[in-house]
Amino acid sequence: MGQLDLELDRSSNVALYRQLHDRIVELIEAGAVSAGEKLPASRELATELGLNRNTVTSAYDELVESGFVRSHVGQGTFVLERPSPPTPISWSFSRAGHASSERVRTAAAPSSHPDPIDFASLVPDEELFPVEPFRAVLDEVLARDGKKLLQYGPAAGHPPLRNYIAKRLKARGIRASAENVLIVNGSQQGLDLVCRSLLDPGDRVALESPTYTIILPLLAQYHARIDEIPMTERGMDLDALSRLFEVTRPRFVFTMPTFHNPTGITMSGADRRRLLDMSSSVGVPIVEDDFDSELRFAGESVPPLKALDEHDGVLHIGTFSKGLFPGLRIGWIVAPQRVVEAMGHSKLIADYHSSLLLQEAVLRFCRLGLYDEHLQQLANIYGRKSRVLTTALSRHFPDTVRWTEPQGGYAFWITLPNGLSAEALLSESSQEGVIFTPGSHFFARAEGKRFLRLSISRVPEERIEAGIRKLSNIIGRQLTKSTGEETHRARGQEPALHI
Amino acid sequence: MGQLDLELDRSSNVALYRQLHDRIVELIEAGAVSAGEKLPASRELATELGLNRNTVTSAYDELVESGFVRSHVGQGTFVLERPSPPTPISWSFSRAGHASSERVRTAAAPSSHPDPIDFASLVPDEELFPVEPFRAVLDEVLARDGKKLLQYGPAAGHPPLRNYIAKRLKARGIRASAENVLIVNGSQQGLDLVCRSLLDPGDRVALESPTYTIILPLLAQYHARIDEIPMTERGMDLDALSRLFEVTRPRFVFTMPTFHNPTGITMSGADRRRLLDMSSSVGVPIVEDDFDSELRFAGESVPPLKALDEHDGVLHIGTFSKGLFPGLRIGWIVAPQRVVEAMGHSKLIADYHSSLLLQEAVLRFCRLGLYDEHLQQLANIYGRKSRVLTTALSRHFPDTVRWTEPQGGYAFWITLPNGLSAEALLSESSQEGVIFTPGSHFFARAEGKRFLRLSISRVPEERIEAGIRKLSNIIGRQLTKSTGEETHRARGQEPALHI
Repeated sequence: MGQLDLELDRSSNVALYRQLHDRIVELIEAGAVSAGEKLPASRELATELGLNRNTVTSAYDELVESGFVRSHVGQGTFVLERPSPPTPISWSFSRAGHASSERVRTAAAPSSHPDPIDFASLVPDEELFPVEPFRAVLDEVLARDGKKLLQYGPAAGHPPLRNYIAKRLKARGIRASAENVLIVNGSQQGLDLVCRSLLDPGDRVALESPTYTIILPLLAQYHARIDEIPMTERGMDLDALSRLFEVTRPRFVFTMPTFHNPTGITMSGADRRRLLDMSSSVGVPIVEDDFDSELRFAGESVPPLKALDEHDGVLHIGTFSKGLFPGLRIGWIVAPQRVVEAMGHSKLIADYHSSLLLQEAVLRFCRLGLYDEHLQQLANIYGRKSRVLTTALSRHFPDTVRWTEPQGGYAFWITLPNGLSAEALLSESSQEGVIFTPGSHFFARAEGKRFLRLSISRVPEERIEAGIRKLSNIIGRQLTKSTGEETHRARGQEPALHI
Repeated sequence: MGQLDLELDRSSNVALYRQLHDRIVELIEAGAVSAGEKLPASRELATELGLNRNTVTSAYDELVESGFVRSHVGQGTFVLERPSPPTPISWSFSRAGHASSERVRTAAAPSSHPDPIDFASLVPDEELFPVEPFRAVLDEVLARDGKKLLQYGPAAGHPPLRNYIAKRLKARGIRASAENVLIVNGSQQGLDLVCRSLLDPGDRVALESPTYTIILPLLAQYHARIDEIPMTERGMDLDALSRLFEVTRPRFVFTMPTFHNPTGITMSGADRRRLLDMSSSVGVPIVEDDFDSELRFAGESVPPLKALDEHDGVLHIGTFSKGLFPGLRIGWIVAPQRVVEAMGHSKLIADYHSSLLLQEAVLRFCRLGLYDEHLQQLANIYGRKSRVLTTALSRHFPDTVRWTEPQGGYAFWITLPNGLSAEALLSESSQEGVIFTPGSHFFARAEGKRFLRLSISRVPEERIEAGIRKLSNIIGRQLTKSTGEETHRARGQEPALHI
C-alpha cells in the first residue's frame, strides 16, 4: 500500500477521514488492492500521509462499517473478499421498445411562433365539437344504465355498438354483422391489434410511400420489414405492387385508399378491384385504413375495399376520431369472424376492453342522427376551406409547384420544384408564422425532401390565403437563390412523381 | 376420357350441361385429365352419355368461358394449362396471437345455474358503484372543459392526473412526481406496456405460482419463458427465488405483494425488504401489481415495494378498476422517468392515449374526496363479508380444509384435503347453485387440483353462509366417497403447501 496513491485534497470540504476511506474503496474496487491484503498500520499511514492518527483510524472504522475490510485485534486490518458489486437495475429496453422509441422521437412536429397559421396538424378543430349534445347524451346513458356502463365489458366491444357499426357500414356496401366488428381504442389500436395478431418478427409489410407516420414505429416494434410502394396520382402504384408480389409475399398490404394521408389521394373503383384481384390471387390480406372516408366534401363516393372484397381478404379499420371526437378513443375493425375472435383475444390481453360508457354514449349519439348531422357540417366547412386553399394555391404558387386536390379529409400534398426543400421552406416560414409538415415525416426510407403536407383542419378559413401567400413569397425567394440554370430546368420539367 | 366417370344426376335440379361442366372441372382439378389432352368430340360424348348433343356443346362452351379448355376449329377441344389456383387469404395468426389465444380460450369460467351463489367472480359489485356522484362530476367537467377533454391528449396521460397520483402515492411512502407516472387503460395495459418495453422473445419472467390468470397469455404473447416461484403463507417463496437467481436472471419478477390474487396473502415488510435486496443485488427489476391494496379492511398497512425501493428497481402498477369503476379503464405505472418516457412511446403506438374526459372526471372525483369515501365504504362492506365468510368456513368446513384470511381485497384461497379435487367439487356444487374458481386456473404448469379461490366481491352477505354450507356438504360426501384409509391419512397430515 505504501506505493499507492493516497493523496488527499486538504482544501476540500470533505472530511479527510472520509476522503481517505473513499480513496481506499476506489483502490479496492479498481483491484489495486486485493482481498486478503493487509492495510498499513494506522500509525504508519498517519505518519506517511502527515495525518492525525485518529483520521486514519476513523477511515478504517468506516471501512469496517461499509464491509470492505475486517480488523483482527493484534493482527491488523485486512481487505475482504468483495461480493460482486450490485448489478445496476436493468432498464435496457426490448428490441421492440427501442425500435419504436427511435421512430417516435423523430416524429415530433416543430412549432415556435406564438400564433402560427397551422397547416401542420391533422388534429380536428375542437371548436367544431358538438360538446353540448354529447354532454346531454352522456348524462342520459349514465342515468339510465350507469351501473352496467361503469362495469367491465366484453373484450370484443359493446354488442349494440358492434351491431350498429355493422348496419351503418351496410350503407357503404360492406356486408358485415356484429360478429365481424371488433371495437378498439381508435384506429391506432386497430393497427396494433392487426400487427399483434398477424406479424411474426421478420415478416414483410407492403405500404404506400409516403404513408401514415405512426405506422412506421408500430411496424418497427413488431420487427416487420417494410416494402414501400410509391404513390402515384391515382393512389398506390399497382404495377410496383405487382412486381413486389412476383418476388415476395408480404404478410399484408397496408393502404389508405380514400383521402390518403398524407397525399389526400383517393383510389378509383377500378384500381380498387385490381388491387383486390392481385392480392387475393396471391393470398395476401389487405389492411384498409378508412380513417377519414366519411369526410367527403366533393366528388362521387367510392366503395371501400371491404365492400368489394369477395375473398374475405380485407381488414377494414374505421374510427370516430376524425368525424367526431378523438378523445372518445373509439374505432373498429371489420374482419372475418374468426379473425375478430383472435383479435378479441389480443384486445383482452392488451387492455381488457374499451369503456362501455363511451361506447354506449357514441352509439346513442349516432342513433339520434347527431353524428350524421355533424359529418354534414364538417363536410361543408372542410369543403369551403378546401376551395379557399386551392384558389389560393392557384393564385399564389408558381407553376412549378404541384398539389393534389382531395375530395375529402383535410390533407393536401405539395410537390416543390427541383432544388427546393420543404425543411428549408419550413425553417423560414415558421419564423414568419406559417407551419406545415415536411414530407420527410411520411417516408420510411426515401428522403422526400421536395414534399410537404398542408392540412386545413385547424387553420381558420380567413387565414388560409395569407398563409399561402407567405409560403409562396418564401418559395419565390428560395427559387431565386437556387441557381438560375437549375430553376430554369425545373420550370420546363414535369416532376417524375406527381404526388 | 371414355374411361372417366362422368355420371350425371338426372333427378337433380342442376342443369345437365352444368353438371357435365362441373364434373369435367373436377376431373381437371384432380389431375385426372391433363393439360393438352383432347376432350371427346361432343357428338361421341353425347352418344356415350345418352345426352342431347347441345347439352355437351353447352358444357364445352362453358368450359371455354371459364378458361379450362380451348376449342380449335376442325381440331377439337383441348384442356388448358391451369394457372395455379388462387392462394387462400392467409389468416394464419402470428406465433404471438396464437400463443395467447390458446391461453385465453381455456380461461373461461363455468356457470349454468339461473341464480348461483357466485364465489367465482373477482369483478366488483356494480350495486355499490357511486354512479350518481360520478355522473354529476362528469357533467361538470364536460360543461367546463368539453372541447379540450374530447380532443387528443398526451400519450403519457393527463398531466393533472399524473400529478395527483404522484401526490396520492406519497401518502403511501412512494416518492414520485408527475414525470414518474404513466396513465394506462387499467392495470392490464400497464402489464402489456411493461412486457412490450422490456421483453425480448425467450426472456424469462419469474412470478408467483399461483398467479393472476391473464398474465399468462400476455407473457405467452411476448414469448417469455416463465419461472414459477411457489407461494408460501408469507407470500412468494423468497428462498426459491434466491435459488433461481443463482442459476438465472429473469428479465423481471412479477409479484402481487398485497392481497395477492388468487391467495389473498400479503407479504410482510421484512420480506419485502429482502425481496428488494435480493433483486437489486442481481439487477433484476420488480413489477409490483398493486391492483387492490386500497381495499384493506383489517390489519396494519404495509408499504408497497415501490415505497421501499432504494434502487429505482420497481415498476408499480395501480388501477381504479377495483376501488372505483372497472369501466373507466384507468390505471397507472409508477417508474423511473426514463422508463415512463419509453413506455409512453409504446403507449402512443398502442393506442395514442387514454380518454382525457375519463381522466379528468376521475381526477375531479378524487379531489372532491369521493374516491376515499367510496373506498371506506367498500372496506366496511368487504370487511363484514370477509368475517361472515371466515366464520362460515370455521363452522362448516372440516378441519382438513385450510384457507387464507386476507386483510383486504376479496380473494380467499382454499386448500382441499388430499384426495379431493376442486374441479370435482365444482361440477357438483355448480349444479346445486354454488360456483367458484378452481385453482388450476392460476398455475402456469402445476395442476393445482386441490386449490380453489372464493371471492366475496359479488356474493351478497346473506348468502355467504348458505353457499359455504352447500360446499361443505359436498366436500363431506366426497371425503366419504374417497377411500376411508386415504381420508384417514389426509386428516392426520398438514398440507405441504399451506396456501
